[in-house]
Amino acid sequence: MQRTSFNEMRCPIARSLEHVGDWWNILILRDAFRGVTRFDGFRENLGVAPNILTRRLKGLVQSGLLERRRYSERPPRDEYILTDRGRDFRPVLLSLLTWGNQHFPPEGLRTEIVDALTGEPADPVLVDRVTGRPIVGPDYKVVRSPVASEPA
Amino acid sequence: MQRTSFNEMRCPIARSLEHVGDWWNILILRDAFRGVTRFDGFRENLGVAPNILTRRLKGLVQSGLLERRRYSERPPRDEYILTDRGRDFRPVLLSLLTWGNQHFPPEGLRTEIVDALTGEPADPVLVDRVTGRPIVGPDYKVVRSPVASEPA
Repeated sequence: MQRTSFNEMRCPIARSLEHVGDWWNILILRDAFRGVTRFDGFRENLGVAPNILTRRLKGLVQSGLLERRRYSERPPRDEYILTDRGRDFRPVLLSLLTWGNQHFPPEGLRTEIVDALTGEPADPVLVDRVTGRPIVGPDYKVVRSPVASEPA
Repeated sequence: MQRTSFNEMRCPIARSLEHVGDWWNILILRDAFRGVTRFDGFRENLGVAPNILTRRLKGLVQSGLLERRRYSERPPRDEYILTDRGRDFRPVLLSLLTWGNQHFPPEGLRTEIVDALTGEPADPVLVDRVTGRPIVGPDYKVVRSPVASEPA
């Protein structure tokens, strides 16, 4: 972020972007969901320079989205595993995927979400778990409210 | 994007990021959903340098997420309105908002999605419109398949 005002930081979108707002970070998370765990795997998939990848992986570990685990002592080698916080990012990726397919349709291979049982393409929609209704305006709105204080 | 392989471009997440992968772009879209339409409005909200904002707005117009409309001839002044493609980006923003609240809770003011009728906070979840089931693994998976050819 090039300039942060206090106001912006109250916004969860801005706060999220502090942690994943980087182009590469989002693609690294995408690959982690595809099962990639090792430095060389990310590097080959993304065609990213090693120094950039090292920095991005370190940032994602610091932000608590990936966990670093040693899988070999000699030579010392680490792998990167999604944490719960990282796993919870999946709806953002799936929403991006859906929007990309909708507005920038690919040629050749298509990446899509399917029902694992039937193989039918899914039609992802964001709904309110409480009411079951799709979260669209004007039924739902985004508001700012004071954070309730914790009892002392 | 610093380096693009053909493989990556098949992925709708990578394709989407070509158009909105920029930190500022996502915050500009966020503000557009809040009703901001004018250059000065974006500039004040974001605290962004005018030359950066000019470039980002131009990019979002080129990518078809915003439409530029002249609202004053003398002096010449334009405003920026969300297109259908831009509006369809809302689930991505709402998913980011939800993840940010979940993992980086704010102090002071909280931004949240509420039911406009009851004021109750919404609990956003991505479901399959076809089956009504939440899109989570292992029930749903992401696959690559050939794009069906259009009949001639």
